[in-house]
Amino acid sequence: MRVQVISSVNEASSAQFHHKTALIVDVLCASSTIVTALAAGSVGIVPVETVLEARAARQAGDLLGGERFCRKIPGFDLGSSPDEYTSPEVRDRKIILTTTNGTRAIVKSAKADFVLAGALLNASACAKAAVELRRDIVILCAGSNDEFALEDGLCAGLLLERLLGLTGGTLELDDFGYAMLALYGDRSHAIKETIQQGMTGKKLLKLGLRKDLESCAAIDRYNEVPRLYGDMLISNCG
Amino acid sequence: MRVQVISSVNEASSAQFHHKTALIVDVLCASSTIVTALAAGSVGIVPVETVLEARAARQAGDLLGGERFCRKIPGFDLGSSPDEYTSPEVRDRKIILTTTNGTRAIVKSAKADFVLAGALLNASACAKAAVELRRDIVILCAGSNDEFALEDGLCAGLLLERLLGLTGGTLELDDFGYAMLALYGDRSHAIKETIQQGMTGKKLLKLGLRKDLESCAAIDRYNEVPRLYGDMLISNCG
Repeated sequence: MRVQVISSVNEASSAQFHHKTALIVDVLCASSTIVTALAAGSVGIVPVETVLEARAARQAGDLLGGERFCRKIPGFDLGSSPDEYTSPEVRDRKIILTTTNGTRAIVKSAKADFVLAGALLNASACAKAAVELRRDIVILCAGSNDEFALEDGLCAGLLLERLLGLTGGTLELDDFGYAMLALYGDRSHAIKETIQQGMTGKKLLKLGLRKDLESCAAIDRYNEVPRLYGDMLISNCG
Repeated sequence: MRVQVISSVNEASSAQFHHKTALIVDVLCASSTIVTALAAGSVGIVPVETVLEARAARQAGDLLGGERFCRKIPGFDLGSSPDEYTSPEVRDRKIILTTTNGTRAIVKSAKADFVLAGALLNASACAKAAVELRRDIVILCAGSNDEFALEDGLCAGLLLERLLGLTGGTLELDDFGYAMLALYGDRSHAIKETIQQGMTGKKLLKLGLRKDLESCAAIDRYNEVPRLYGDMLISNCG
């Protein structure tokens, strides 16, 4: 089984996903929020790129979620903090979530046979689901502002570590994959501190959102693996 | 002092180098070959992109060096193995070296105030020279086939480790820089093994060029820091 790791959405081309399983990683915060919402009983999350699209896609009973510049969007039900998505009102509701990098990553990976969302929160479950799908894997680090984001690379490394464990070390990695595996190896004892070193982590700290950052840093808190069916991410457990 | 790390030539734009010191890293093998040649007494290395350009640039007394598909070019004096460049015939000669990634990296960084070539072979001297030039730094990993190369990332991490040591840890790193620093931190005990894991390392091993790989893996063997003046890299020691 081959695993390729792509450093940011900018670096991805659709052709790379043919006949593959795509793991979309956007630790701060789209992947983490989606995993959390599914764990809280949401029926599914529809990721869209713009606020207008979000409003247009909303049907009766749906919740609107997302942020711009790390702030909740006026008129929306939920922001981007994973903790908001544990609320009981999420249960049995569909959520229209506007994210920029996360949605672009999903659009880029449209040609994949399967698309899963990976985060630190569900790394082991995500790796297990990916192995069971029996395809070569592309881990797409969504990144931030079209650039590599440290927390996504850290999560890619964790996913690789889990994938290697599940396959008895038989994976074929690319150069960037080896680098991310080493990043995780070097920093696995200091997950929160590493996330705080990254550009997005620093921004969240400045905005007083340390709790969001901590909520995204808990490895294997959930077993839910968001999987794309049509335009909606639903739980692979369900 | 800020340090930015760029993952491959493909990712670099000229504007990123304005008023900066560029460190060009192409461990296998352009940077390593250039450092070795200067240490052996070459007066300077002129990097050019094509075989035709190399032949056109040659003047009486110059040596022609370079490879295509890891093999010496017919009619050239030297191939791409660093060990060839330790020969006494290199002393006091100018070398026209055709490299693909290395030359493209130098062209991309043309707007930098200073351009240095960094390798594992000269990491400490290169970091010291860069700090003394008192500019923000861009480390450009040349990569291979337009993609990130593991050995270049490893060398970027080593350079960052040395730069942090020289500046009392006061550097401002970007996310990719932190990742490369961790890569080096995790793999510093296994430099050769890590280079062998990379795509180019594997290719050299298949071609029976293990010795080249080992010659490029010796940290701090030389004090020469190739620095671009006009179209020629000369020793910063001199």
